[in-house]
Amino acid sequence: MNTNAFEDDQRQGLYRAIYERRDVRSQFLPDPVPEAVLARLLHAAHHAPSVGFMQPWDFILIDDLAIRTQVKALFDEANLSAAQRFAKEGDPRARLYPQLKLEGILDAPLNLCITCDRRRGGPTVLGRTAILEMDLFSACLAVQNLWLAARAEGVGIGWVSILDNQRLADLLSLPEHIYPLAYLCVGYVSEFLPQPELASRGWQQRLPLTQLVHRNHWQGDALSPTLNQALQTTQIPNYCRQEGIK
Amino acid sequence: MNTNAFEDDQRQGLYRAIYERRDVRSQFLPDPVPEAVLARLLHAAHHAPSVGFMQPWDFILIDDLAIRTQVKALFDEANLSAAQRFAKEGDPRARLYPQLKLEGILDAPLNLCITCDRRRGGPTVLGRTAILEMDLFSACLAVQNLWLAARAEGVGIGWVSILDNQRLADLLSLPEHIYPLAYLCVGYVSEFLPQPELASRGWQQRLPLTQLVHRNHWQGDALSPTLNQALQTTQIPNYCRQEGIK
Repeated sequence: MNTNAFEDDQRQGLYRAIYERRDVRSQFLPDPVPEAVLARLLHAAHHAPSVGFMQPWDFILIDDLAIRTQVKALFDEANLSAAQRFAKEGDPRARLYPQLKLEGILDAPLNLCITCDRRRGGPTVLGRTAILEMDLFSACLAVQNLWLAARAEGVGIGWVSILDNQRLADLLSLPEHIYPLAYLCVGYVSEFLPQPELASRGWQQRLPLTQLVHRNHWQGDALSPTLNQALQTTQIPNYCRQEGIK
Repeated sequence: MNTNAFEDDQRQGLYRAIYERRDVRSQFLPDPVPEAVLARLLHAAHHAPSVGFMQPWDFILIDDLAIRTQVKALFDEANLSAAQRFAKEGDPRARLYPQLKLEGILDAPLNLCITCDRRRGGPTVLGRTAILEMDLFSACLAVQNLWLAARAEGVGIGWVSILDNQRLADLLSLPEHIYPLAYLCVGYVSEFLPQPELASRGWQQRLPLTQLVHRNHWQGDALSPTLNQALQTTQIPNYCRQEGIK
């Protein structure tokens, strides 16, 4: 039945990338990413699925220190504002927020902005006739391809998501129809942490998967006992055990 | 420098999933996906990155034939409307559109709706303070993890993206703050096509990657000749050669 499945080693490689991938902020090394490796990462991103094969993405490689310094200033401003917001709302984690390092804009040797061309493919794109945001969603799939390929290459990626998009677009001279979807820090790392930093620092823990699976409706039919059992006993690979997930 | 990279076999597994993944519409087999496999796919999705470790996703497994039949009716309506739109606009591909099979809602043994809880993690989520859509983008990353894991397991996935979201939400009894991000058809397949069907049917071809890479600005600095060379000569794995990509 299942002759299309990968052999164990290759399947393991895919799962390992998924489980060992991290959002890197603090472990970047200054060593440049060789261009052959970078080309593999970009090809991986370019082979993501996209609505109507629209391929709405572009890749802006940013090595210029002056631009990265300006982006860092955008981050600092947004980060301060976010810290104040948590404090103002009385979030019990407000004191923790300023202690978290949330970007590696200048530490990483390379930044990469993955954009979405909202006009690519013309006014009507197959599969995008009901939900206009399908182009943005497609570009996200490219981000994840790149993120996983980077893990397999030993390269860390961190997504900086609080920049003012209009000012970022200005810094990168983006035309109006080009949306700066993901601003990524890219570089080799000293280590990939065994678990997400927001978990180890006590900001937020992983939710139990069984709470998130429904059958047929939101308040749905009961899951079969065997699926429930499988969800609870799935072997998360060894390298992920530190997180205490079963 | 790069001791964190995977060994060749595992790295190959990751790239193979990326390059051999397809948006499946026509090759679904009726065989059920074993619950152990399904659990692995859901765990893979659940280990996607998410803004502020928000994990905004839920997974609604839809095996009920009555619901799938209603979803299929939603699709048929949206598809007819899309066909008329291409015709009205005088798109030269308008005759091709109705010949394309764009879903496997009833062919696949299982449908899966991956949703996004817009309220999870409270009113202010770390990393989501500037761009509210970061929750939707995070849920997309979960879709891609599942899509790639499915390929490694020999399971095909097809994303049906033209459904009327409000009526889909009603069918699945979703609360108002739960957005039905991705409606997926899931099942084993007779084969994974060597290239995307929209390319082989002449709807849209893959864009040359070198046109999509910029340096520092949109109308940017020249790429280094070595990067340009690397982008053009990157070895796309053998199983992708049929597509004629270098």
